[in-house]
Amino acid sequence: MNKNYYAILMAGGVGSRFWPVSTSSFPKQFHDMFGTGETLIQRTFKRLNKIVPAENIYILTNEKYNDLVLEQLPRVTQKQVLLEPAMRNTAPCILYASLKIKKQNEDAVMVVAPSDHWIEDETTFVKNIQTSFDACSKQDMLMTLGITPTFPNTGYGYIQYERNPKNEIKKVDQFREKPDHETAQYFIGQGNFLWNAGIFMWSAKSIVNAFEIYQKELYHLFMQGYKVYNEKEEASFIKENYHKAENISIDYAILENAPNIFVLPAKFDWNDLGTWGSLYNELEKDPNANAIVNADVVLNYSSRNIIRTSKKKLVVIDSLEDFIVVDKDDVLLIYPKKKEQEIKGIVSKVKEKFGDHLA
Amino acid sequence: MNKNYYAILMAGGVGSRFWPVSTSSFPKQFHDMFGTGETLIQRTFKRLNKIVPAENIYILTNEKYNDLVLEQLPRVTQKQVLLEPAMRNTAPCILYASLKIKKQNEDAVMVVAPSDHWIEDETTFVKNIQTSFDACSKQDMLMTLGITPTFPNTGYGYIQYERNPKNEIKKVDQFREKPDHETAQYFIGQGNFLWNAGIFMWSAKSIVNAFEIYQKELYHLFMQGYKVYNEKEEASFIKENYHKAENISIDYAILENAPNIFVLPAKFDWNDLGTWGSLYNELEKDPNANAIVNADVVLNYSSRNIIRTSKKKLVVIDSLEDFIVVDKDDVLLIYPKKKEQEIKGIVSKVKEKFGDHLA
Repeated sequence: MNKNYYAILMAGGVGSRFWPVSTSSFPKQFHDMFGTGETLIQRTFKRLNKIVPAENIYILTNEKYNDLVLEQLPRVTQKQVLLEPAMRNTAPCILYASLKIKKQNEDAVMVVAPSDHWIEDETTFVKNIQTSFDACSKQDMLMTLGITPTFPNTGYGYIQYERNPKNEIKKVDQFREKPDHETAQYFIGQGNFLWNAGIFMWSAKSIVNAFEIYQKELYHLFMQGYKVYNEKEEASFIKENYHKAENISIDYAILENAPNIFVLPAKFDWNDLGTWGSLYNELEKDPNANAIVNADVVLNYSSRNIIRTSKKKLVVIDSLEDFIVVDKDDVLLIYPKKKEQEIKGIVSKVKEKFGDHLA
Repeated sequence: MNKNYYAILMAGGVGSRFWPVSTSSFPKQFHDMFGTGETLIQRTFKRLNKIVPAENIYILTNEKYNDLVLEQLPRVTQKQVLLEPAMRNTAPCILYASLKIKKQNEDAVMVVAPSDHWIEDETTFVKNIQTSFDACSKQDMLMTLGITPTFPNTGYGYIQYERNPKNEIKKVDQFREKPDHETAQYFIGQGNFLWNAGIFMWSAKSIVNAFEIYQKELYHLFMQGYKVYNEKEEASFIKENYHKAENISIDYAILENAPNIFVLPAKFDWNDLGTWGSLYNELEKDPNANAIVNADVVLNYSSRNIIRTSKKKLVVIDSLEDFIVVDKDDVLLIYPKKKEQEIKGIVSKVKEKFGDHLA
């Protein structure tokens, strides 16, 4: 494998729409959401490891998930786990990781990717990353992978690219925020809009360079520590300075400002696994379109449900349609799929009423 | 308390319509169905003990429930627990218990009652039993307590009595099997029909006498052991002979044959707790008519459900109406209340598919 290839896995999220399985002390990415024996972060690590050497895969996460990461990814060493001492959006941690990588290897190219998404076709994924790495190695460009939309989803951001049938890699025209339904339909009709999957590729040089130009303050803050990165003193520098960083996403900080943004229309199916419903879409179904994870079931007059329990729990259901049924030790959730967006709000309510331990 | 007063508590049933809480290894009567800290048999024992001395209360049950009885009723000693070595209907065990009691006390009067029914008004219950005991002590009569029907229930048997406004205790005209809806409505319209609650009162002499006349074979079978009852040798006699007894109910064996059957219209509310729905009727409700046992709940757009879990389990439900939701360690049941009669059948299905341990 190419020693210049690096990856940054974003693993700090909480995934509260997957409550009660996902909680702030044990978030989604560390769960076996498909009941296959592998957690989402394990699947993502494996996928990236098909093109990036294991020792070059960095995990960006929160201090409280450090043990989970080391436990679930035995090939990752402590120095590959970057712990944010304060909750910040994506720009600060990506800059920090990129500087560490750049100091280690001036020729590094990297992919930045969420740890909790679903991509089944790994061969195509690897091929698309390879294409991107090849391009980023040669030119000063910041790339994203864009997903070809299959329906007018209002839950994703969109990437509009400049039409140019000759090039596989397209120049980005603009990023568009989550649209309303009508706008989403218009986007799809245009044919040059892609879903923003939050997967980025660039060389260490290019991304650091972009921060120097478009986010001077952040750049200078983190450059103060450049001499101690990958050394003993790094930890205390980060502890003292990280919280000073602006709370800003990589999209706002860089992608919407830099002129050299490109997108590769991805050729694989993708799902952000944002909700129980999106997980339902990727799970196997029984003849009545019920998706079952872990449970043994006796189902009558019940269809299109997603049912998840601990292993081998017996679930007997009659006359239930389009529901999310999730059982774990101390919590049982029975919620209509069409209201899945409310689950995040339920978590706050539960915290308020019953304390943090359940949420 | 009157030393001549005895009770026989029937505690051998399985209550499979209360699955998954009630199972053949841990049936309904041994569960705290109301979440009050007391099991049904404990409540029943306490109620009877208001008029019958604790040492005169006998428990008729199956061998496998012996430990549960002794554990839950610490005032009951082993000699008060009569274990049926073979599954038989009610007549053989009632005769056996009655002979033991008669041998102990020729003047005994007794109440025979199920261990798993709901009776809230204990004062009136005791008053009605007292009235019956007084009558049975003086005359050779076999009495039942009849419940004044509140609606045309098709799940109970009915007792038709002879109209006679002068006497509080009525002579029974006939027992009527579970009627269809139209017949039940007719019964209620008549005004001299009562629900058969399976609560009987008689003297030891009267019931043994009735067996001698109407069930000669049973009588002779159990009389063979009369000399060893309440002695060491009793156990081996019962083990050798019990299985020879005819499988017949007390209703068919005696009540439908003897001429001296009387009924006292009971003045208390009663519920046989035969199904989740009947338990629902007696539980406290929240403002949306949900009945909650043990669980902590967050309920939205949900009404008229019965929800039972282990203590303090958090249950979050949206858009569910008229359901039974029961969770225990290894089983979750979500079933429409109106189909509660099917639950018994589900248990067989579960046994077949997943083995006996869950049923």
